[in-house]
Amino acid sequence: MSLVRMGVGMLLRVRVSLPDRPGALGAVTRTLGSAGADILQVTVLESVSGRALDEFTVSVANPAVRDRVSAGLEAAPGVRVEGIWETVEPPGAFPDLVVLSQVAVNPGRGLATLVDAAPALFSAEWAALVETDPSPSVVTASWQAPAEPPLPALTPLRPRTVSLPGGTHLAATPFDGTSTVLVIARDHAPAFHEVELTRLTVLADIVGAIVGKAVVSR
Amino acid sequence: MSLVRMGVGMLLRVRVSLPDRPGALGAVTRTLGSAGADILQVTVLESVSGRALDEFTVSVANPAVRDRVSAGLEAAPGVRVEGIWETVEPPGAFPDLVVLSQVAVNPGRGLATLVDAAPALFSAEWAALVETDPSPSVVTASWQAPAEPPLPALTPLRPRTVSLPGGTHLAATPFDGTSTVLVIARDHAPAFHEVELTRLTVLADIVGAIVGKAVVSR
Repeated sequence: MSLVRMGVGMLLRVRVSLPDRPGALGAVTRTLGSAGADILQVTVLESVSGRALDEFTVSVANPAVRDRVSAGLEAAPGVRVEGIWETVEPPGAFPDLVVLSQVAVNPGRGLATLVDAAPALFSAEWAALVETDPSPSVVTASWQAPAEPPLPALTPLRPRTVSLPGGTHLAATPFDGTSTVLVIARDHAPAFHEVELTRLTVLADIVGAIVGKAVVSR
Repeated sequence: MSLVRMGVGMLLRVRVSLPDRPGALGAVTRTLGSAGADILQVTVLESVSGRALDEFTVSVANPAVRDRVSAGLEAAPGVRVEGIWETVEPPGAFPDLVVLSQVAVNPGRGLATLVDAAPALFSAEWAALVETDPSPSVVTASWQAPAEPPLPALTPLRPRTVSLPGGTHLAATPFDGTSTVLVIARDHAPAFHEVELTRLTVLADIVGAIVGKAVVSR
């Protein structure tokens, strides 16, 4: 059992924009290391127009380390902090695959498994399955979803990201060939990136294929 | 289209063992950056007994940069280079999911899709689907597989990694409930790590669930 799970530390997602040149990533990892953060994963979200958007998953022992991480990155030349927020689950080596294998083992519970796992997979706060026909109604929702989840316009059916006036960021993707939509939501954290929306859509496609359209629409 | 695909550079996997302490990863990324390598992805394979095993996917412009990467890492205090080898495909943000969605879209070709994609997914050289009953025979194999692929003992059926006397490293995992085994192979590169074997097994489980046992055994 990890220290984080034992309540000794906390896991953070750190999203930074930095110059896309050799050494820039090294400067960030050095800053994180000096602040006392343990880097568990690094993902390059995008690399365009001479800048890269990178996301780190780090373990920190306490809020003071989090503050040092934040201060250190703010002071690093060329680095722009897009967001630092707490995430609930260690990402593991391949969390998406583990969830998909759970769906494969028990397809009857596949949609519920995806909805329950989605917040941890996307460092989000909650997820919900929404039937849009004839009008949006929540079929099932994850732990920590509000009793009446705020929903954006979901039709015409297509993958989309939306930021609501209250500050909640959403990503939504329909299950192919159905009127059912998977919605994930984040507060106090950056909006969903295009890459995250694509990942959500691909996950929904795969789960839909395993579970079958009939079950998704039921 | 990336520079790598246009033949301007090459993609490398770099596997290093380093002290599991704050700053160690920063030293490695700095070394890679100074050598002129562009870091595309970092994965922590394991973290035990005070050391971490990390795998970097980097883009380098030419063989001279590769040599500087190698020399720089060899000289870095506390760092042990486990392997530097060429890989054939940019990893993308989530290559496993993309392959699974291709399988989901066309389950009839699902096993062939997995076999064709496996070398790139695992920075391996070839992959093959082997029917073990009554005796091992290759059902289908990827591009670059030898005409008669060297195979380890595959029964009793269970996930396994094997290194053959000639230096070929193999990982093999059975499709659940069948006598069919997926085999991937690497030469001139490190042996498959336990984490890679688990990933291969989970992928095979998911593809098996999408495709169906009947098709796998056919």
